[in-house]
Amino acid sequence: MTDDQLRTLDEMLRDGPLDLGGELHEQRRLLVEMLTAIPLPDDVRATPGDLAGVPVITVDTGEGGLDDPGGGGVVLYLHGGAYALGSAEASLGLASDVARRARARAITVDYRLAPENPYPAALDDAVAAYEALLETVAPDKVALVGESAGGGLVLAALVVLRDRGVPLPCAVAVFSPWADLTLSGATMTTKSDVDVAVTARGLRVRGAEYVGTRDPATPTISPVFADLTALPPLLIQAGSHEILLDDALRVAARAATADVAVDLRITPRAPHVFQGFAAVLSEGDTALTEAGEFLRAHLR
Amino acid sequence: MTDDQLRTLDEMLRDGPLDLGGELHEQRRLLVEMLTAIPLPDDVRATPGDLAGVPVITVDTGEGGLDDPGGGGVVLYLHGGAYALGSAEASLGLASDVARRARARAITVDYRLAPENPYPAALDDAVAAYEALLETVAPDKVALVGESAGGGLVLAALVVLRDRGVPLPCAVAVFSPWADLTLSGATMTTKSDVDVAVTARGLRVRGAEYVGTRDPATPTISPVFADLTALPPLLIQAGSHEILLDDALRVAARAATADVAVDLRITPRAPHVFQGFAAVLSEGDTALTEAGEFLRAHLR
Repeated sequence: MTDDQLRTLDEMLRDGPLDLGGELHEQRRLLVEMLTAIPLPDDVRATPGDLAGVPVITVDTGEGGLDDPGGGGVVLYLHGGAYALGSAEASLGLASDVARRARARAITVDYRLAPENPYPAALDDAVAAYEALLETVAPDKVALVGESAGGGLVLAALVVLRDRGVPLPCAVAVFSPWADLTLSGATMTTKSDVDVAVTARGLRVRGAEYVGTRDPATPTISPVFADLTALPPLLIQAGSHEILLDDALRVAARAATADVAVDLRITPRAPHVFQGFAAVLSEGDTALTEAGEFLRAHLR
Repeated sequence: MTDDQLRTLDEMLRDGPLDLGGELHEQRRLLVEMLTAIPLPDDVRATPGDLAGVPVITVDTGEGGLDDPGGGGVVLYLHGGAYALGSAEASLGLASDVARRARARAITVDYRLAPENPYPAALDDAVAAYEALLETVAPDKVALVGESAGGGLVLAALVVLRDRGVPLPCAVAVFSPWADLTLSGATMTTKSDVDVAVTARGLRVRGAEYVGTRDPATPTISPVFADLTALPPLLIQAGSHEILLDDALRVAARAATADVAVDLRITPRAPHVFQGFAAVLSEGDTALTEAGEFLRAHLR
């Protein structure tokens, strides 16, 4: 069983230095350190570029790629970090792992961060990057993937794109999405003792920086309140040891009620974005494999 | 696409004679007629018997079976019919299809029906049949599967079995479970126009017969109110055109929050227990294949 793996990971995260709500530049440095602790596999090729002026990194692996007969297509990837931390470069580990298992190319987006650039800067960048990508790739060969804040951003971007009449991607996968910046989910308190990675205080601090003077219940800030009609098939993965669990559950319920094809998978006792620990946690490995199968089935 | 298939099925069901809340004996006859309209495949072998005195039918198909090296195990199957209609025999079509795709044997249970036998008769029968099955089959070779009322009954039986300390099956799958006999789900009204198979009035009539003098919010009558801790991995499938959609969503949320491994799959615009129409609806076929894969992975 993986009880030992889960316990080890739990202790590592609980004792770790990351404090989401702490001093911004220190936390930015610590998250990058954590995310880049494991070197990238040798076959990962990362090429910086831009889409409509938004900096991106194109990621190819030995497995599959844009025109691979066994896969193909592009995963447009939005990293996590509570809208204030993280970067395209720091996301290369997880983004390349998703790309490999989807047998696709990944393009990970350096959307602008708060507090320097509050809402709607990140959203504008995500939407602009997707629209620019459509100039060279058909929408049925594009999937949108995001984790944590990037998962919420994926959903918000889809709502904007749908409302503008832009053709939507063929599939969407979100890992532990942060989709409610009002922090109204019941698990925000009921899971606080078992969540070793994220705190309500941290989300409150970073969320306020992103939201700025807006209402945090704005549907394109908190897509749990958005009309999700006409979204593409949606895979949602989360762990049950997350204060953000209710965000995943409510996105699933809201999308399902709006006639979206929903696949919600909850992994017991797993922490926030446990897919990032696939190398040391079988549940993370399984979840990534399932996400890859889901993406491949739709990109094909 | 399957738009045509869905439309045809919709019309067929909308114009069909079944009226869940109608005169009992007429509705019993009509449901059997509907469920047995398509003849069973030639390779289905159905053997009547009993488990602890509860009548059952053992179902084997050409694919797999109890000791099949490519599969194996037993699916204990609880049919639907709002606790008042349906039978093990009328369930042979769907039960054998589940068995075939799981490469397992199915045993479908003729639990007692209301109003002749109100709660807890059906639950007692389900629990007794499972316990008797464990005398010859190890729990890790047993999965519980149910549709509609049978899905709610599966969940209620698991709660009883867990509380008694009985070893639980290795996996559970429920299709469009009816898990709230208080009918408090929002989709009970928001989906009433698009649900062509089930009406709140019908559920109210048949539910009252089953509940009798009890409180319908009793957790073993309405498992959306039960503590679902320690349940086995749970697959929940439902269509988005169901007044019972919220039952599926709430079971998923409640189980996930209780650290159960949950896989919730919602099929857009599909009707109640659309798996039963796999022969004419690709979505039903896909869902049954996915259920078979899920069961096989755990029974292995």
